[in-house]
Amino acid sequence: MYSLEELKHFIHQAAKDLEVSREPKELYQPIQYVFQTGGKRLRPVLSLMACNLFNDQVDQAVMPALGLEVFHNFTLLHDDIMDGAILRRNQTTVHEKWDQNIAILSGDVMAIMAYEYITDCPVDILPEVIRIFNITARSVCEGQQYDMNFEKQLNVSTEDYLLMIEKKTSVLLAACLQIGALIGGAPKPDAEQLYDFGLNLGMAFQLQDDILDSFGNPELFGKEIGGDIKSNKKTWLLIKALEMANPGDKKELVKLLAGTNRDDDGKVDKILSLYNKLGIKELAEKLVQFYFSKTRTSINNVKVPEKRKLFLRELTDSLMNREK
Amino acid sequence: MYSLEELKHFIHQAAKDLEVSREPKELYQPIQYVFQTGGKRLRPVLSLMACNLFNDQVDQAVMPALGLEVFHNFTLLHDDIMDGAILRRNQTTVHEKWDQNIAILSGDVMAIMAYEYITDCPVDILPEVIRIFNITARSVCEGQQYDMNFEKQLNVSTEDYLLMIEKKTSVLLAACLQIGALIGGAPKPDAEQLYDFGLNLGMAFQLQDDILDSFGNPELFGKEIGGDIKSNKKTWLLIKALEMANPGDKKELVKLLAGTNRDDDGKVDKILSLYNKLGIKELAEKLVQFYFSKTRTSINNVKVPEKRKLFLRELTDSLMNREK
Repeated sequence: MYSLEELKHFIHQAAKDLEVSREPKELYQPIQYVFQTGGKRLRPVLSLMACNLFNDQVDQAVMPALGLEVFHNFTLLHDDIMDGAILRRNQTTVHEKWDQNIAILSGDVMAIMAYEYITDCPVDILPEVIRIFNITARSVCEGQQYDMNFEKQLNVSTEDYLLMIEKKTSVLLAACLQIGALIGGAPKPDAEQLYDFGLNLGMAFQLQDDILDSFGNPELFGKEIGGDIKSNKKTWLLIKALEMANPGDKKELVKLLAGTNRDDDGKVDKILSLYNKLGIKELAEKLVQFYFSKTRTSINNVKVPEKRKLFLRELTDSLMNREK
Repeated sequence: MYSLEELKHFIHQAAKDLEVSREPKELYQPIQYVFQTGGKRLRPVLSLMACNLFNDQVDQAVMPALGLEVFHNFTLLHDDIMDGAILRRNQTTVHEKWDQNIAILSGDVMAIMAYEYITDCPVDILPEVIRIFNITARSVCEGQQYDMNFEKQLNVSTEDYLLMIEKKTSVLLAACLQIGALIGGAPKPDAEQLYDFGLNLGMAFQLQDDILDSFGNPELFGKEIGGDIKSNKKTWLLIKALEMANPGDKKELVKLLAGTNRDDDGKVDKILSLYNKLGIKELAEKLVQFYFSKTRTSINNVKVPEKRKLFLRELTDSLMNREK
């Protein structure tokens, strides 16, 4: 069995050989740049861990795992154009560093590379891997569209929001685990348990992101606290606050949200006070625990010896206790 | 054996069932719009014809053929953003009718749908179909990048240009034929002959497009003659003229190209005169014939009875004699 660090190393090695020295360089340099900036490599590591639950070897799962990471980075690259983001992982975004056309086209090539690598899996499970990934990839795009819709939409319910993050974030984590498990030789029911595990982990993870953005420890968080509030982002916290606030507080909240994407009039402090008054943080934490406990049920149901589950449990626990 | 009209009908029927009634509608309406505007459906028809060379049934090839058309339309959608195009097939482009973000994301979903449909093929040839399509899809993006590079590049050779159109246009036609043939049960060498057939057909087709844009019959062409010249597009005609012109003519040509994207100072007439003086049209037509004759060699080499090749020969001949 491989540790987290060993699995990260496999991904790191495979990423080095990414075919980015190809021509035209205008197309491949941005892809190399995106990959060098790194990130947590959470998706491919989860995929390899799922494989490793069932199989002592993970080599057949490395390229598909890398493909899933390439797909994730493709969606970030295009999302950054759509959001007009200047920075990603503390580095200038591709459309800022090069230009928008190059960002669109490099992203398109990354989507194709993702399919190339993901379909580089054992041929007996190829149709099933493709089926899972197609549904997932489409769902991620649908999630991004809902996210963009919500920016302009007045009434977004917590149910709408949870469906959006399920599509935009959770299904990809779920697919990473399911595909990794299938490559490892998992029986179908176990692979489905791991899909559910990933789905609920994704929900918990995204909600925790929302909590950290408003209530994180500024010294540990790595970004400024209150970024979501400043930019009027409709997170679960904000939607819940809008649902729960009394008429007076709601009026004040709507007024603050109608303003600029800056911290005018102490907007961040005012909204944080309201969150505190309504106990929003505790409600969000309860929801994180709800999804987290579902991940435990799923992993418990996977029919492999308990000791094989050690690294996946450790990783999940550390994700749930993260400060950034 | 099915006629051109019958094959078009199969594609038309399959396109009707395109999953475009899905939510969110902001994502799927533009896809439906792109599909309703139609086009020649050349790629899927060629794919079905290649299948029909080897097999009386083409039903297994319909979804992959549609997928290849969806992929083609995805590239047009993103190219139109990059080129800032206002019209496509006489209809407002998606980024003009909706907005750029929707055009990026709808395009992304179309790329995924393309993979969905193309991989809906007999499982015994699935790995080979995916391999061919992955290389092709990447190549199309590389071709688009070269095309964008050439706009800013002073010296583009005819060899550079031919490589660019091979990647941007020809390889997809080639892949359509090869994949269709494989689904029809073609032996590998025959499928490769059909790949070559499509590759050379694509070269002939694109060069003919360039000729028609400058020398077409205005009444039959359907668009204004001289559009490429006006917009300083580096077509084979222009590159060849720059290569062949005497120093005085070349200086004049470079001066005209440095101007606006309009017909200032009778630019179109002046450049057409130079083309006539240098015999550019005849040289281009000779090159079209060169590629066209290669398609004949390839189709002759395909080991099926001559009568099965009838419709493919007819379609190729009509493409070579088109006025628009």
